[in-house]
Amino acid sequence: MPAPKKNGLQTVWFQNPPVIISTATIVGSKEGQGPLGHTFDKVVEDNYYGENTWEKAERRMLKEAMQNAIQRANLQPQNIDYLLAGDLLNQIISADFVARDLGIPFIGLYGACSTMYEGLALGAMLIDGGFAEYVLVGVSSHYSTAERQYRYPTEQGTQRPLYATWTVTGAAAAVLARQGNGPVITHATIGKAIDLGQGDPMNMGAAMAPAAADTMARHLMDTQRQPDYYDLFITGDLGTYGRELALKLMQQKGYDISTRFSDCGVLIYSPEQDAHAGGSGCACAGVVTCGYLMQEIKAGRLKRILGVATGALLSLCSYQQGETIPGIAHAVVIEGR
Amino acid sequence: MPAPKKNGLQTVWFQNPPVIISTATIVGSKEGQGPLGHTFDKVVEDNYYGENTWEKAERRMLKEAMQNAIQRANLQPQNIDYLLAGDLLNQIISADFVARDLGIPFIGLYGACSTMYEGLALGAMLIDGGFAEYVLVGVSSHYSTAERQYRYPTEQGTQRPLYATWTVTGAAAAVLARQGNGPVITHATIGKAIDLGQGDPMNMGAAMAPAAADTMARHLMDTQRQPDYYDLFITGDLGTYGRELALKLMQQKGYDISTRFSDCGVLIYSPEQDAHAGGSGCACAGVVTCGYLMQEIKAGRLKRILGVATGALLSLCSYQQGETIPGIAHAVVIEGR
Repeated sequence: MPAPKKNGLQTVWFQNPPVIISTATIVGSKEGQGPLGHTFDKVVEDNYYGENTWEKAERRMLKEAMQNAIQRANLQPQNIDYLLAGDLLNQIISADFVARDLGIPFIGLYGACSTMYEGLALGAMLIDGGFAEYVLVGVSSHYSTAERQYRYPTEQGTQRPLYATWTVTGAAAAVLARQGNGPVITHATIGKAIDLGQGDPMNMGAAMAPAAADTMARHLMDTQRQPDYYDLFITGDLGTYGRELALKLMQQKGYDISTRFSDCGVLIYSPEQDAHAGGSGCACAGVVTCGYLMQEIKAGRLKRILGVATGALLSLCSYQQGETIPGIAHAVVIEGR
Repeated sequence: MPAPKKNGLQTVWFQNPPVIISTATIVGSKEGQGPLGHTFDKVVEDNYYGENTWEKAERRMLKEAMQNAIQRANLQPQNIDYLLAGDLLNQIISADFVARDLGIPFIGLYGACSTMYEGLALGAMLIDGGFAEYVLVGVSSHYSTAERQYRYPTEQGTQRPLYATWTVTGAAAAVLARQGNGPVITHATIGKAIDLGQGDPMNMGAAMAPAAADTMARHLMDTQRQPDYYDLFITGDLGTYGRELALKLMQQKGYDISTRFSDCGVLIYSPEQDAHAGGSGCACAGVVTCGYLMQEIKAGRLKRILGVATGALLSLCSYQQGETIPGIAHAVVIEGR
């Protein structure tokens, strides 16, 4: 019988940490013009990416990111044991159709904007558990597809409050492997759905901050580590106000991470880009992790990070029926070598 | 390093087969009146189940099934390492809100009507891989929520073709454990998204049959077993016509399973119930597996089965944009002891 790797804790650790052997990113023009624009593999200026709908454009981005990640790993799709993927569209159709095109056994995920890290955590478990040699993880989002599905017709140009975030247009993919060169995943903390009663779908940062703080604090307790063990705590898409809220909640839990806490949504746009509170969407944590963060880790400027992607678990229907918004956050430790 | 449990094949086998220590089911009145009505734990006559929307009724069913499964396992929610759950509603809101209420670390899944088996397969991997002692798997669907989300306003009473299936109202849950009493999961075969070009969303059986046949044939090849190794091959919700199609495709692949092949969707309603081609929905494979099949296995009338839940990977949006419908099928071997 294999030894338990968690012993009743919420955090698992990997006996043979799976390796992130390749990543790939692709983003839209707004993301390309942002402070991290130079860290992405490709910037697509055309919002339709040559397709006739935004949904097909998003799908094309996801497929291209996945194909690039596979190619960079010197693999073929048939070498990959599992594709773990998801997106924000109803029934995760971006992931569904790319899964069809690639022909890799497909495990569909839905964790809202936390999906990239849900996939990294699960993929690492499947590899360290002995069930896979290679796992492909991928996510996508698109401002125009998300806006019209979750909010208003995109063309309507409805005014957005300053605490709203902007859905990142892009896709990210990573290949995890049992062996190889690259940063490793040493731990994963799967989060609980936390709901403190916030019900405004424009203010997702506030809805997700309690989940982010819960997962980060649980991770530190489980591993008996202090915040200074990590060079960086980085959440997915809390945005400016959500990040502040998470910081306060962490202080209440006895952890001061103020000197080492950032958020992918805060980093991806500059204040001049009028994205209000920052970026969001599955691709936000996806492209920042697979682009900027991987490059910083490989260059040795970051040695150990706790990445914590956050998701708001709502639908148009749940909002219309008066429900509040549970948040969720999944954390993964990524270490350079 | 743990030994690989698949060696490049699509099927994994479990060194210490995880045990299904408890299950629970709850269904609506139509399902209660069907041939398997006596095998379900509870039949709810009120389509709203005391709530003010169908979506909340579905959620209440899912929560109750999960709570019952936990209780029957003599556990508390805090003993469960992971909740693996999903449903058909946009952004899987049934699972999201039950995850919030139960407070168990939550891995959201989307595999359309294959989700129960996606969860059983993944849950078994997490346990056998050493990452969990107990995993809770659950799914739900509801005729009225699915009908109005995917097709027409429920009140409209649009005529349905005879090859259409009827979404099962109900919820199912199972607790998997490293040790204990009950049937075991010995193998899992995660399927690929297969699309032979069927584009009629009323004919999901035809869209899913190729995926079912692909996964079943792959499982037999990987395990080097002949069909007579199993007492029963049972698909999730192919319905009458989809089952026939899958049977033919299996014959083309060189496997005759005609004497031992059934479908949960065919079993759950009688022809007199006017459900046309049979049942469908996440709960179809869910309640038939967690109710009828578990009882047959525990009674020794079935010793070894290959359960193969099937999913149609479409959304209203993908259909409206002219896409065909990829199918997917995940298989799990359940053996009595």
